[in-house]
Amino acid sequence: MAATPPPPAAAALEKLSSTKMFGGHNLRFRHQSSTLGCAMTFSIYLPPSPASNLPVLYWLSGLTCTDENFIIKSGAQRAAAAHGIALVAPDTSPRGLNIEGEADSYDFGVGAGFYLNATNEKWKNWRMYDYVVKELPKVLSDNFEQLNTSRASIFGHSMGGHGALTVYLKNTDKYKSVSAFAPIVNPINCSWGQKAFSNYLGSTKSDWEEYDATCLVKKTKEVAASILVDQGDEDKFLAEQLLPRNFEEACKAAGVPLILRMQPGYDHSYFFIATFIDDHIAHHAQYLKSA
Amino acid sequence: MAATPPPPAAAALEKLSSTKMFGGHNLRFRHQSSTLGCAMTFSIYLPPSPASNLPVLYWLSGLTCTDENFIIKSGAQRAAAAHGIALVAPDTSPRGLNIEGEADSYDFGVGAGFYLNATNEKWKNWRMYDYVVKELPKVLSDNFEQLNTSRASIFGHSMGGHGALTVYLKNTDKYKSVSAFAPIVNPINCSWGQKAFSNYLGSTKSDWEEYDATCLVKKTKEVAASILVDQGDEDKFLAEQLLPRNFEEACKAAGVPLILRMQPGYDHSYFFIATFIDDHIAHHAQYLKSA
Repeated sequence: MAATPPPPAAAALEKLSSTKMFGGHNLRFRHQSSTLGCAMTFSIYLPPSPASNLPVLYWLSGLTCTDENFIIKSGAQRAAAAHGIALVAPDTSPRGLNIEGEADSYDFGVGAGFYLNATNEKWKNWRMYDYVVKELPKVLSDNFEQLNTSRASIFGHSMGGHGALTVYLKNTDKYKSVSAFAPIVNPINCSWGQKAFSNYLGSTKSDWEEYDATCLVKKTKEVAASILVDQGDEDKFLAEQLLPRNFEEACKAAGVPLILRMQPGYDHSYFFIATFIDDHIAHHAQYLKSA
Repeated sequence: MAATPPPPAAAALEKLSSTKMFGGHNLRFRHQSSTLGCAMTFSIYLPPSPASNLPVLYWLSGLTCTDENFIIKSGAQRAAAAHGIALVAPDTSPRGLNIEGEADSYDFGVGAGFYLNATNEKWKNWRMYDYVVKELPKVLSDNFEQLNTSRASIFGHSMGGHGALTVYLKNTDKYKSVSAFAPIVNPINCSWGQKAFSNYLGSTKSDWEEYDATCLVKKTKEVAASILVDQGDEDKFLAEQLLPRNFEEACKAAGVPLILRMQPGYDHSYFFIATFIDDHIAHHAQYLKSA
């Protein structure tokens, strides 16, 4: 009788750190990403409570960030502990590939993956969409038996708000809810998006629309949860890059429920995020816990 | 008739930044310190509520920190906003004086003022005790009419916990209450303290005792408020540098009420601080608000 082949090995995770916070733990891991072809780090906050069936809330960060900014600055762990939700924060791009020009600017290349799958051969490793939607959930379910990755929601900030909205709108079956802080909602109509999309995706406009929340929402059939967006009205990127009113109009036309809160006096920083993070986690909790 | 001389000008403050958070504002200022003989920065969080008679809670940071670590990482603003308390975070030493050797180590010189008045001529600018106790309150009362600096309490972390405890014990008339996270409570008996005190103060042991909380508490007549101390039991500095049991014993002998909470699994980081910061602010609020 032939020996049974061993089960495929779970992706090897190297634990970089573990720190107790609000009764749970901030953990940081490195692993080899087959999607991106490089080593990637991610952070996860595991709340103190249940040892099984924990829902997962993904956080996608903005330009220049790593997996650490959110963990250090947002204060999200307090509410995550209270609600019994795991937080997962991936990095924002491949790193260490030494592609020519990858670190020439803050808004393209390293730290600026825009959560898409690049089609330009030069940037073929930039597949953050597949990394976030496919590889990372598999890495989590293979390595953390206390997580239930089918109970998942997603949120993010700025470029990561764009990522959260587009990932959600393309996968309303995979995520229970979405929210965003100061998201780039219409990248095909702002310079950050145009620079990134033309380099990662080439010049075909219809390809760009696949990663534009304002375009995607027009094709969305139905969403189970209201979309929550907070936007500071003193955010210096509001008028030129973020364009929340375009998204609001598209949601209205498509009949998609949007809660857009313009927050007077707030800017684009993590101080703004920390102020409203509890509301966002409570928003996701109602959908994650009823699932 | 001789002209009335103009009133002395309030110390000029240069505003470096202002960011809205939890309805209030994080402000950061630079000013020329007459005590230290250099430009100093400090941060202040002003809560949204009352425009007058605001109590002040000073935060003293640990080794290597500036005024910003606490503002970025502690999450203290949420509770400060809720209680209507202003938070003030000074820097941890003079900077920019270019004293030979001032930046050779993380635990002495720049970023390591130990909240004392140095007597060694070489370090004569290191007068963080006078800066915190005398100059900074004056700068605040001269420039922020909404503050009532006579309603003040003080807390801090590690070296800043040492600072908070010693400043309080030497000035129980000036501060309503004190608390600390992982404080250095007996610096004359640990290597951090011995290195700093021998260089700043010389070799006379009785001079050192003036800046040692465990020595000072023995001479304390009466304190109006319990002293609150949180200490992680997985803090790598616990056994060699922090020595909370020495302070506990001295408080007991002196009849000074101490709430020492050993927190299982917690380390020395701001993740530990953020976990218990609400408790500390609530502790101070009861004394600041009843004042």
